[in-house]
Amino acid sequence: MRDPSPSGVIKPEVRGLTAYTLKHFAADVKIDQNENPYELPLELKREIVDRVLQRPWGRYPEFIPSAMIKTLSKFTGWPEEGILTGNGSNELIQASLSVTLGPGRRLAVPQPTFTLYKLMATTLQAEVNALLLDAETLTFNVDQLIEASRTADVVVVCSPNNPTGCMLEREALSTVVKNAKGLVLVDEAYHEFSGQSALPLLAENRNLVVLRTFSKAMAMAGLRFGYMMAHPEIAREVYKSKLPYNVNIFTLAAAETVIANRAILDRGIETLVRERGRLFAELQQRDAVRVFPSTANFLLIRTARPARELFDHLYSQGVLVRDVSAYPLLDRCLRVSIGTPEENDKFLRALDRALEKN
Amino acid sequence: MRDPSPSGVIKPEVRGLTAYTLKHFAADVKIDQNENPYELPLELKREIVDRVLQRPWGRYPEFIPSAMIKTLSKFTGWPEEGILTGNGSNELIQASLSVTLGPGRRLAVPQPTFTLYKLMATTLQAEVNALLLDAETLTFNVDQLIEASRTADVVVVCSPNNPTGCMLEREALSTVVKNAKGLVLVDEAYHEFSGQSALPLLAENRNLVVLRTFSKAMAMAGLRFGYMMAHPEIAREVYKSKLPYNVNIFTLAAAETVIANRAILDRGIETLVRERGRLFAELQQRDAVRVFPSTANFLLIRTARPARELFDHLYSQGVLVRDVSAYPLLDRCLRVSIGTPEENDKFLRALDRALEKN
Repeated sequence: MRDPSPSGVIKPEVRGLTAYTLKHFAADVKIDQNENPYELPLELKREIVDRVLQRPWGRYPEFIPSAMIKTLSKFTGWPEEGILTGNGSNELIQASLSVTLGPGRRLAVPQPTFTLYKLMATTLQAEVNALLLDAETLTFNVDQLIEASRTADVVVVCSPNNPTGCMLEREALSTVVKNAKGLVLVDEAYHEFSGQSALPLLAENRNLVVLRTFSKAMAMAGLRFGYMMAHPEIAREVYKSKLPYNVNIFTLAAAETVIANRAILDRGIETLVRERGRLFAELQQRDAVRVFPSTANFLLIRTARPARELFDHLYSQGVLVRDVSAYPLLDRCLRVSIGTPEENDKFLRALDRALEKN
Repeated sequence: MRDPSPSGVIKPEVRGLTAYTLKHFAADVKIDQNENPYELPLELKREIVDRVLQRPWGRYPEFIPSAMIKTLSKFTGWPEEGILTGNGSNELIQASLSVTLGPGRRLAVPQPTFTLYKLMATTLQAEVNALLLDAETLTFNVDQLIEASRTADVVVVCSPNNPTGCMLEREALSTVVKNAKGLVLVDEAYHEFSGQSALPLLAENRNLVVLRTFSKAMAMAGLRFGYMMAHPEIAREVYKSKLPYNVNIFTLAAAETVIANRAILDRGIETLVRERGRLFAELQQRDAVRVFPSTANFLLIRTARPARELFDHLYSQGVLVRDVSAYPLLDRCLRVSIGTPEENDKFLRALDRALEKN
């Protein structure tokens, strides 16, 4: 053993990384992870659990979960051969980047955005071209995105974007995709709250990859499920880096049952979208708060107060939000998930109290 | 879009890969995946399911599953800071290789062995140094392994080895680890059937990583759970490449409950080990069969017949085994998982019938 320390065996790019992590806080009003506050009905959960009890647990899931993929194909209209399922969409993002990125290859990605893309690309020793959002409006700089896509091996766009809530309109996305040298990954984790999807662009763009999750609108964050849609030729290559048996029998049963009962979720989603509008209007009335338009199930706000201080004030009142002030351009910003009407009211009251002080 | 085809965007190393896959066959006697034929008792499953019904499904799992890690630490005696949990051990193998391998780095790995190691290393564009087992005995070539470990960035040893069943004795492993330039990953998927573990070597070897799965002895292949033990400094780095929220709330509840009730599994494991001995002796009596000693829950056999032909004969009698004849050195070989005594008898009868013909 010559040099057993991490410096001897771990890639330098990885050693330089700070892990993506999140401290655990318990709270009465938990609006820090963009989760769906409306749980699946208990009868539906019992149906899922009964299905799972009838299956052997000691046997591997099917190598390819055909029933699930058929269901997703019907649900989306996209052919089965172009669909992959994952342990959350994160796994499929990782698999997509693994088969495309390495040293000498480049990822172009707007900033600020979801942390994992850059982290994964750096682990793969790829170059990362960070494309700053417009500093004033925190919206996508479309021209810059189109320009960067001409030379990048992969472009990742989270739309609606986390943690800002801005969206890349379908027409702009189409231009990006058509000008792109490589793959364009669109992370649609929040698409159900935006009324838009990149799905209609898939058929005519072989370099487009659309990723979706069941962790937000589909109320399954605890069960981990996501899927990818792409041209079958691309799906076949990404498949090589996805883990075998990556989705367990419980999550498969749950995801199938939830899709079959998709309408049950609609009312919750409608309420969240309505509440987003109400909360946005409420916040706009407050001089001390800047609130950014959002097409997702959260709002980004900025105040004059240091984010940590405001976070602490809110938390002392039982309201847990996300401090995103360490992201580029997001000084003094907090991200607030849309909760139930009662939770949103509690947040507003707590915010008003916190802003009164000092 | 300049070149939207996979050849334009996918790394050439990946394009050259054949995906790891497995065709699905239904069978009366399913002894093709080294699964535990003894299911967890129904009352235990109900206990797990009840725990899950009491948790919100729409909320993410804890970022770090502390209760689970504490349980594993007590179970193994290894400190919590050196334990990571995964969606099957495959995810942790992938994460370990991701933080250590890239172009210009080398994996040394015995062959034949579990397919994924080489596949993952190739996706990461690393060089793969394949170390052939002894062609006659199909056991590890220890001197060659020690020599290769002096210059490789990572060595992976599956012990007991899949699909041959051979084991790297702890003393030999210790020598490999002490001479290794980089990390030594020991995949202990089958350790419960071997009576040996690399765990006692961990404390004195900072470059050793031990991987375990709940898919074999622990009877949870359908639920996907695995864990890794390493020096905390190494665990901290591998953690950066593991997906956040990678183990869902159902699997966490199941794994915790199964560990707490570990004794329930013991009788099944004892039976399988006893049956392995019986089956080995039975097969040794057959002139037409060469059977290799195994410390795992499967046996590797070779006959004079083409493997595919024998596989088909067995399958036509309702017995599904694994054709491993495409692996290096394994011409005319089949891998047979140890089943229940009844299943093993059915296999023997089917084999005898198949070998009589022709």
